[in-house]
Amino acid sequence: MTDEQFPRPIVTVDIVLLTLSDERLCVALLPRATEPFQTFAGLIGGYIHADEDQDAEDAVRRILKQKTGLDGIFFEQLRSFASAKRDPRGWSVSIAYFALVPKPVLEAAAHTLELRPVTEPGSLPFDHGEILAAAVNRLRGKGAYSTLPARLLPDIFTMSELQSIYETVIGERLDQSAFRRKISDLNLLEEVEGEKRQTERARRPTTLYRLKDPISVFNRRI
Amino acid sequence: MTDEQFPRPIVTVDIVLLTLSDERLCVALLPRATEPFQTFAGLIGGYIHADEDQDAEDAVRRILKQKTGLDGIFFEQLRSFASAKRDPRGWSVSIAYFALVPKPVLEAAAHTLELRPVTEPGSLPFDHGEILAAAVNRLRGKGAYSTLPARLLPDIFTMSELQSIYETVIGERLDQSAFRRKISDLNLLEEVEGEKRQTERARRPTTLYRLKDPISVFNRRI
Repeated sequence: MTDEQFPRPIVTVDIVLLTLSDERLCVALLPRATEPFQTFAGLIGGYIHADEDQDAEDAVRRILKQKTGLDGIFFEQLRSFASAKRDPRGWSVSIAYFALVPKPVLEAAAHTLELRPVTEPGSLPFDHGEILAAAVNRLRGKGAYSTLPARLLPDIFTMSELQSIYETVIGERLDQSAFRRKISDLNLLEEVEGEKRQTERARRPTTLYRLKDPISVFNRRI
Repeated sequence: MTDEQFPRPIVTVDIVLLTLSDERLCVALLPRATEPFQTFAGLIGGYIHADEDQDAEDAVRRILKQKTGLDGIFFEQLRSFASAKRDPRGWSVSIAYFALVPKPVLEAAAHTLELRPVTEPGSLPFDHGEILAAAVNRLRGKGAYSTLPARLLPDIFTMSELQSIYETVIGERLDQSAFRRKISDLNLLEEVEGEKRQTERARRPTTLYRLKDPISVFNRRI
């Protein structure tokens, strides 16, 4: 018996699109246009188009653009979810990704997405609840050791905004001076010259920063 | 146009089977029985059997047992490799796993596997070189923060053997007293009561240990 006598599984990609809204980590969901689970809000996803997509990342870019209008945002593979039971249409593989996007970029993309806090996502179709939990877990784990959380901020930010995003992702308060010393030791940021921002709280205009290398991984925890 | 007009990709699992041989981290390869790349030594893998495997882990267990005789060893999903070009048979998804096995267990399994150091794996078929590199990278990264490296040891080991396996996986020498203090702080081990081992170097018989929880993840680096 040759292996190819077995029917081929369905292959899709699913994208856990995360953003920060009202200081909470949120997932962006899309109401499903077709069965199964028609009208239910689920993760953004679709079939691999073997005639069109060169690889799975190509499929992610195509689906993000078609279904949300987003282009050029950060995404990374999470892992695959593959079983006979996860999809009523048959044996199915979902290659899952997580994507991070600043909220203004998400809003400018114009498509209607539903934002829900990752801690209260409600009932999701398929195994999307499990995929979401795995993505949040990965972000929390890697967040403390990488510049990943900064991908939820616009390109230019203040030190307070950066600390706040790490606190939200990691889920704990960080000491301000220890955080600033660590960030300074890691040599991650560069000042945006000639630009300052006047905030309500500070007497002097606040220095603005950007990441030198947008996806560096540290040796130690923030 | 419905999505299902597109041909379905091939779906396989591939397993990076790692062991320790002569104090080097090695990958166990299998000569391929069929085309493409017939007779070339490659990662252990095979098609998902949709009629037989309930999920991808089922396929991993089935393939490990059929092709190597191994049963009940530790494995974990790495990530998927999916593209139009990686397999000459067409658009293909490989859900890749890494497995860790003590060498005596591997030798007892009786099938002929070829061991090569992960630093000098030679030329491998498909994108198996890339999959191997990703697995080694994951093990090195997670190794410093988890009990993963201990899966390369038999169930019962000495403290020196444990330190040595961490050094091999992480790729750097560790201070003996700092290592022992850290292991003690993490409260990972239990003494195997009533068993000691007489080694050549030590004057007194050496205490033997086993892991309490075989896959715990630490907060800090070893």
